[in-house]
Amino acid sequence: MREVAILGIGQTPIDEHWEKSLRHLAGEAVMAALADAGGIDPPQVEALYVGNMLSGPLNRQENIGTMIADWVGLRGIEAAKIEAACGSGAAAFRSGLIAVASGACDLVAVVGVEKMTETVGPSTTSSLATAADADWETAQGLSFVAINALVMRRYLHEFGWSHNDFAPFSINAHANAVHNPNARLRDSITRKDYERARMVADPINLLDASPIGDGAAAIILCPADKLKPNGRPVITVAASASATDSLAVHDRDDPLVLAAAGSSAQKAYAQAGVKPEDIDVFELHDAFSIMAALSLEACGFAERGQGVRLGLEGQIGPQGKVPVATRGGLKARGHPVGATGAYQLVEVAQQLRGEAGETQVPDAKIGMAQNIGGSGATVVTHILRRN
Amino acid sequence: MREVAILGIGQTPIDEHWEKSLRHLAGEAVMAALADAGGIDPPQVEALYVGNMLSGPLNRQENIGTMIADWVGLRGIEAAKIEAACGSGAAAFRSGLIAVASGACDLVAVVGVEKMTETVGPSTTSSLATAADADWETAQGLSFVAINALVMRRYLHEFGWSHNDFAPFSINAHANAVHNPNARLRDSITRKDYERARMVADPINLLDASPIGDGAAAIILCPADKLKPNGRPVITVAASASATDSLAVHDRDDPLVLAAAGSSAQKAYAQAGVKPEDIDVFELHDAFSIMAALSLEACGFAERGQGVRLGLEGQIGPQGKVPVATRGGLKARGHPVGATGAYQLVEVAQQLRGEAGETQVPDAKIGMAQNIGGSGATVVTHILRRN
Repeated sequence: MREVAILGIGQTPIDEHWEKSLRHLAGEAVMAALADAGGIDPPQVEALYVGNMLSGPLNRQENIGTMIADWVGLRGIEAAKIEAACGSGAAAFRSGLIAVASGACDLVAVVGVEKMTETVGPSTTSSLATAADADWETAQGLSFVAINALVMRRYLHEFGWSHNDFAPFSINAHANAVHNPNARLRDSITRKDYERARMVADPINLLDASPIGDGAAAIILCPADKLKPNGRPVITVAASASATDSLAVHDRDDPLVLAAAGSSAQKAYAQAGVKPEDIDVFELHDAFSIMAALSLEACGFAERGQGVRLGLEGQIGPQGKVPVATRGGLKARGHPVGATGAYQLVEVAQQLRGEAGETQVPDAKIGMAQNIGGSGATVVTHILRRN
Repeated sequence: MREVAILGIGQTPIDEHWEKSLRHLAGEAVMAALADAGGIDPPQVEALYVGNMLSGPLNRQENIGTMIADWVGLRGIEAAKIEAACGSGAAAFRSGLIAVASGACDLVAVVGVEKMTETVGPSTTSSLATAADADWETAQGLSFVAINALVMRRYLHEFGWSHNDFAPFSINAHANAVHNPNARLRDSITRKDYERARMVADPINLLDASPIGDGAAAIILCPADKLKPNGRPVITVAASASATDSLAVHDRDDPLVLAAAGSSAQKAYAQAGVKPEDIDVFELHDAFSIMAALSLEACGFAERGQGVRLGLEGQIGPQGKVPVATRGGLKARGHPVGATGAYQLVEVAQQLRGEAGETQVPDAKIGMAQNIGGSGATVVTHILRRN
């Protein structure tokens, strides 16, 4: 298969966009990515892959691949929506990647989009719970945050950490988001703020949990050998791997091991020929602070039960050993669920281009983005490289 | 890209399966396809692509790619759901096809599944309307059948046909379904039945419209050069093409031309090196009888406004010039929306293998399946060939 390059990136701010519909948001991101790609005319794009989870229940609109293609001036091209719960964004990127790598297309647009505020369907909380197992988890009355709370409680019990030991994840994410104009929550927080935050589902408090929002992020992909020099660093996709686990957490050998995150990361490392220590920036899926810790462990940055230590030792900031959530992460940049994976990839590309401003990781050459659908159920890992 | 073969096919009857959940249905079809593929152990499968439209609103379950993979013993493999409204089944097949053709995978399972009766969310009718444009069509109070009724009314007005001229499509579909053990409606109908059927949305009556249902159909794909001889004909995928139109019908130059059906069929013909007259069997998307006529016209089997003539001249039966709906079509086999495209492909494979029993098209060598999402908005066309 052919090597694939990231030709353009675009994103909208994540916010409560009362004035913009799902199609407006997606269109804005795609047009921004086309402009960033050097002013490509939409008709040159051959296919559009949309990452989205909740347009059916929340916006009462399916077939959005086709709708968005038409909206951005691409009527006629191939289009589809890819859904893997909160992992939809990266899953759509992977579909676009395979389309280009295989030779099926030479120019593909990927957009992750979600419109979660001002909705017309059932509640957002109950719709988010469709990422969990409806028969074995949701039917017991568990919301998605409650499932993660059970996992966090078990982690605290098993490894002897206190809740406050998770504070660095949220503090780092908020500190980085201050400098990201597209972030949902651009206020820094203190350890005291974290400790005093009101409880959502014990032990997950408000500052452990990522905010939902409306937003879209887009990427234009092309074969690396068709790139024309434009003075910017060339960013290629060095690895792409998707893996799954059981949907229901209780059905796993160990609820504190994200097996799919581990296996997709291992496959990605092998494809790219790198090790965890080669990763300069890691946009992980910190939907809840417990997920940040478990992701670091699953991907080989920390031993089992030791993920929080990286935060406590000050190693997760842009200057640290394992920079995470460098643009705010899910926690503070925000988590428009089906769009999140696309935001992560756009942000890694920004880092590798050296366009990350105040939270730039010095000389970042290799970046990883890991997008998770469900509580570790569907995991899509990508490694990007500056050539 | 590599040539891809259909290694196995499986399906459940389409019915009101009160005793089976979405995962049971999908699992049954996948296991049947694996058995048909020569008893492949599930762990050999590398990826699962699920075609589904309505699991979010109707079953309150997303992330079903991962859920089904785990259920059939494939925990760990790549999985995703592909959504393109009623075109989801063929869109998922196309994703699986590209995965194998590209060399990314050697063994892929595709399953289309829908559970539309016994649901927990909003009404099925309002959920089906999410295939139409929520801002420009549904907001006007149009249901999906109402949109098709407007198109049919315009067709009658424009070309001077009477409603009764559409009868052959429904009569043929029902006659064929009698012999399909998996069909939803296995009763033949007469011209008088058609003429007397009660109105749904004028001029679409009950016998113009396809019934919803619960069901799943699955296909196992592998590279053609890895097939082991097993005494059965080798069925390969000769063409795959997806195209789109505007979501809202009013926004097209001509509401009576399915432009996306035309362009995806033309691309498919070019890929396969065939013409319409070379197609021995055509599983078209007869969600409503008007769609059967328009599909025949768009794909080059009839001139504009003349699609009904093929039926009136007795050319659409298994022995006719253009056999359609040979296993009952959407009209009588049934239309479990996101699964339909997979059923069509399974049925074309049955025809090419010579396994279609009483409705076998004599010596069928080349078959086409065309799956439509929305009112002609998203169209995925495949051509299969017996080698």
